[in-house]
Amino acid sequence: MQEPTPPPLRQFASPKDLVSATADLLARLRAKSPRVHCITNSVAENFTANVLLALGAVPSMTLSPVEIGSFVGRADALLVNLGTFGRERREATSIAVDTAAQGGLPWVLDPVFVDRAPPRATYAQDLLFLRPTAMRLNAAEFAALAGVGDTPDEVRAYSRERNIAIGLSGARDLIAVGRRAASLTNGDPLMARVTAMGCAASAMVGACLAVEKDAFVATTAALLIAGVAGEIASEKAQGPGSFVAAILDALYSIDGDALAARARVELHE
Amino acid sequence: MQEPTPPPLRQFASPKDLVSATADLLARLRAKSPRVHCITNSVAENFTANVLLALGAVPSMTLSPVEIGSFVGRADALLVNLGTFGRERREATSIAVDTAAQGGLPWVLDPVFVDRAPPRATYAQDLLFLRPTAMRLNAAEFAALAGVGDTPDEVRAYSRERNIAIGLSGARDLIAVGRRAASLTNGDPLMARVTAMGCAASAMVGACLAVEKDAFVATTAALLIAGVAGEIASEKAQGPGSFVAAILDALYSIDGDALAARARVELHE
Amino acid sequence: MQEPTPPPLRQFASPKDLVSATADLLARLRAKSPRVHCITNSVAENFTANVLLALGAVPSMTLSPVEIGSFVGRADALLVNLGTFGRERREATSIAVDTAAQGGLPWVLDPVFVDRAPPRATYAQDLLFLRPTAMRLNAAEFAALAGVGDTPDEVRAYSRERNIAIGLSGARDLIAVGRRAASLTNGDPLMARVTAMGCAASAMVGACLAVEKDAFVATTAALLIAGVAGEIASEKAQGPGSFVAAILDALYSIDGDALAARARVELHE
Repeated sequence: MQEPTPPPLRQFASPKDLVSATADLLARLRAKSPRVHCITNSVAENFTANVLLALGAVPSMTLSPVEIGSFVGRADALLVNLGTFGRERREATSIAVDTAAQGGLPWVLDPVFVDRAPPRATYAQDLLFLRPTAMRLNAAEFAALAGVGDTPDEVRAYSRERNIAIGLSGARDLIAVGRRAASLTNGDPLMARVTAMGCAASAMVGACLAVEKDAFVATTAALLIAGVAGEIASEKAQGPGSFVAAILDALYSIDGDALAARARVELHE
Repeated sequence: MQEPTPPPLRQFASPKDLVSATADLLARLRAKSPRVHCITNSVAENFTANVLLALGAVPSMTLSPVEIGSFVGRADALLVNLGTFGRERREATSIAVDTAAQGGLPWVLDPVFVDRAPPRATYAQDLLFLRPTAMRLNAAEFAALAGVGDTPDEVRAYSRERNIAIGLSGARDLIAVGRRAASLTNGDPLMARVTAMGCAASAMVGACLAVEKDAFVATTAALLIAGVAGEIASEKAQGPGSFVAAILDALYSIDGDALAARARVELHE
Repeated sequence: MQEPTPPPLRQFASPKDLVSATADLLARLRAKSPRVHCITNSVAENFTANVLLALGAVPSMTLSPVEIGSFVGRADALLVNLGTFGRERREATSIAVDTAAQGGLPWVLDPVFVDRAPPRATYAQDLLFLRPTAMRLNAAEFAALAGVGDTPDEVRAYSRERNIAIGLSGARDLIAVGRRAASLTNGDPLMARVTAMGCAASAMVGACLAVEKDAFVATTAALLIAGVAGEIASEKAQGPGSFVAAILDALYSIDGDALAARARVELHE
């Protein structure tokens, strides 16, 4: 397992700079069309693939142990979502994570529903020892895994201790990477009425890490783009069904101007 | 396996009372946000999850034998849909049904496509011996399983004999629970042009049973809400694609007034 | 394995005749509602089922070795898509292809992503020896499998040698069946921004083969209908999300007039 170069510790003087960095990342993502291999649950697969395509990335989804190494070896980032895991899926995850480590690929852990089933929490803890680049989850999942609260200081402390970027989704999103932390208050309640929205946001973190080594920027960018797209979509939607289409449309057309106009970002000292 | 208290046998003086009971159930469902664990086929998972979320329930979908007991133990209702069953899925079903029985949880059987494959019909018969609370299916599936016609009297007789609530979907829906039966003629032909509409309706029966012990009321409510939402959606849709979004929007916003204005319910003596 | 009657070698004097044959096929497809059994990846299942239903066909999707023979035995065509293959899936494929051969059913191979993983390419080569009726794929996949370029003459030569209809998707679609070949330039770039569009087009080839023995007509018809529906959809869509709904709506309502007005077909000498 080769040791990746530590990411540069970029400081942001103002939230505006972080929003600019997000716009810049988005442009690079669309130019590069990174491949993101997703190990995810079958509920989330289709929507996750469409979110990545709308954003400008290229998804692949196979779980077969026979071939997942080939796919991850040709990918630019990896997502490991724990939803609906069986024996074959765990075997596939093990191969995929090894392949990512060998290639120096960033990978994202989404410990979905670890608060609902002890075996899943145990498995997530095992995966954390394999050093994912980032973890995206909600407050209930974070509490079940980390055993601490979700204040900026607590999440920063966990991020430092585990050497992992944390993207915590909620009415207020919190991103913490080592000493740096930011909060976002974009988004819309309809996002919680569509399945796999969080899973897709985790895949977006993977796509952003594929084009940006600084995990603080990449994780913030993914959640900020998702949140702003959600706001744009909610203005066009009549409910959660039309919202699904509208957020894909928004991810496809969102740009630096929309981000600058709508972003609600706070940097934590 | 503990014996559940027999449900109260509520009589309805008029179809209007049954529609009022549906509106009342819907309000309780949205207030409680019941968890519905779904064992369903991979074709139907995403749409089923979105239907439950739009309605106000919270879906979970894992099939892993290692953890399904934890999920069902924390749920308020269980759906067992037979679509695409393999070995691991049958093991999961067995654990899930045992857990539901131990916890006194209502569970719904959807014997999808039993008319197409004898092994599936055999498996459905086995599951019927485990006493599901309700079964939702179409006429071809009912004929294959029950071996009788689908008149109100035949379906009632089957319901009494097997001690199970029956929700039979079609141009005319028929609900039969013991001596009580009702027909509904809401809905729209576009509902048959979207995959997993029936599977999702079965999940809705589960969500309704989670907040209403009277299986006659719960099964009728689920099919009535689905049918009225389908009608509302068809008025906004240009075809089956826009219909998918529109029915989710309709399930999200449907209320007692829409039910009262549109319900076409007949009570059978 | 019974030998099917060789399809009649129909010649088309002009592209217009081929478009008329497509319109005629579409009317027969809607009248017959053929059953298409799909072995496909879980990412594509829901969208593929909805595409078939919108077009007028009836999908089934089980992968269980216990029952897939019963399903294929009652179907009118079979799709074998290689996406996300595991052990059980390969066992199911073997049974399904045997059943199709015994019943003289047409079947379509979609060797999705064979350019990404050598084990998948090997498996696709094995399946080609079982003589699929048609294969739909993109240029990268064709290059990985056939090892030749994608000019009309090269693809025709491959089709003759392997005795298989080839539908090559891209900005320009190429259909080659023995000595006959046609190019289509309908479609829209948004089709590449939605997952499973190619997988669904392969299922459409299956549906068309179910009602048309001439594989040149059936393969052309499927890709032409898909391309024209994509164009109609792109005019209504604001991005890839609304495009998904709009292409299903278009497949549902497309008719001979729309095909005649929009088809861009070239016959190769």
